[in-house]
Amino acid sequence: MKINVVSKILEANDRLAADNRKLFDSHGLLVINLMSAPGAGKTTLLVKTIKELGGQLRIGVIEGDIQGTYDAEQIGALGVPVVQINTGGACHLDANMISESVKGLTLEDLDILIIENVGNLVCPAEFNVGEHMKIMLLSLTEGHDKPLKYPLMFQESSALLVNKMDLRPYVDADPEKIKKDAISLNPQINIFEVSCKTGDGISQWAGWLREIHDTHKKNL
Amino acid sequence: MKINVVSKILEANDRLAADNRKLFDSHGLLVINLMSAPGAGKTTLLVKTIKELGGQLRIGVIEGDIQGTYDAEQIGALGVPVVQINTGGACHLDANMISESVKGLTLEDLDILIIENVGNLVCPAEFNVGEHMKIMLLSLTEGHDKPLKYPLMFQESSALLVNKMDLRPYVDADPEKIKKDAISLNPQINIFEVSCKTGDGISQWAGWLREIHDTHKKNL
Repeated sequence: MKINVVSKILEANDRLAADNRKLFDSHGLLVINLMSAPGAGKTTLLVKTIKELGGQLRIGVIEGDIQGTYDAEQIGALGVPVVQINTGGACHLDANMISESVKGLTLEDLDILIIENVGNLVCPAEFNVGEHMKIMLLSLTEGHDKPLKYPLMFQESSALLVNKMDLRPYVDADPEKIKKDAISLNPQINIFEVSCKTGDGISQWAGWLREIHDTHKKNL
Repeated sequence: MKINVVSKILEANDRLAADNRKLFDSHGLLVINLMSAPGAGKTTLLVKTIKELGGQLRIGVIEGDIQGTYDAEQIGALGVPVVQINTGGACHLDANMISESVKGLTLEDLDILIIENVGNLVCPAEFNVGEHMKIMLLSLTEGHDKPLKYPLMFQESSALLVNKMDLRPYVDADPEKIKKDAISLNPQINIFEVSCKTGDGISQWAGWLREIHDTHKKNL
């Protein structure tokens, strides 16, 4: 009975996600669903990525948070179009929230739309919102046991960014173990070690994202 | 309509939580619901707490994880009774999971039962499981914006442990801002700065927990 209810919710979500995807494709837009635990550095990554790619690509952002507009304000300060979703109690974004919030953006003026999901390693991976790819951020300080404890997000993501690499000398977590386990769960995953604080690794990640965008545009 | 469904789920959960609470009270047991984001250090805190208090109090543990038994094995290695719950996809524990899993413990042999929730800053705070108090752990590396972004967990918790204080020299996060915002959300909250790595602050926290246990026992 419980499983029936959940499966119907996911089916309804998938139908709305497919509609969102059609809308995105009609504008030739690449859409990224960015996921992580709370405090892994999603907003700081967005700020660095926008600074790196802002001159080459037109980036828009949808910010998902339980409440507040702190993240959207940081993005808006860069002169980038941004919409804030406040989910209230909900621990993830769903396709309906995205179909409502894109009304606040002029999609034809964008090349890439990045959707920053609610900080949570579980449910965001279960709900498609119409994105072309999911990308996840894991802070090194969260520990190297995370891939095996939260496998779905690693399985669903096209790229994994291991952030806060500047703290490597001060923590016991082993980035090699993270990479090994992430690849065992998802052999196709692209892995980038970055520090959003120092900027290390950001140009490699941003270069990859630009290539993904260019290939996506060519194949439309 | 959606709100009705959610409210019925929470009502049914609260009824089961009240039954759990009666069972715990009939055994004179203090029950703690321990919550945090993934990788904040819940299991390491449990290990340190058991080592500090194990000679004085009989502690049992229920471990909640999406999948795997890694955390339960660490606790079991200390010779402490432990039950592992695997929630499958669910991002939080609920009262029904707890009523099933306590069957695996001999409650009359325990003084404190600590329930380690799934790593998530959102939903665990919404579901009572019959505990006497909620306690949360926030890693300093998650950033000082967390209280205002995830207020419910701070409002529901009797104590906040700010962990990974050993990383203070290397991160921008300000523990004073965390404390100020946590207190603005919940003036009654007890705050402990700890490092589960170095052991700093653990004896203060464990001493507080022992006092809570003693007072609880006296008032039964």
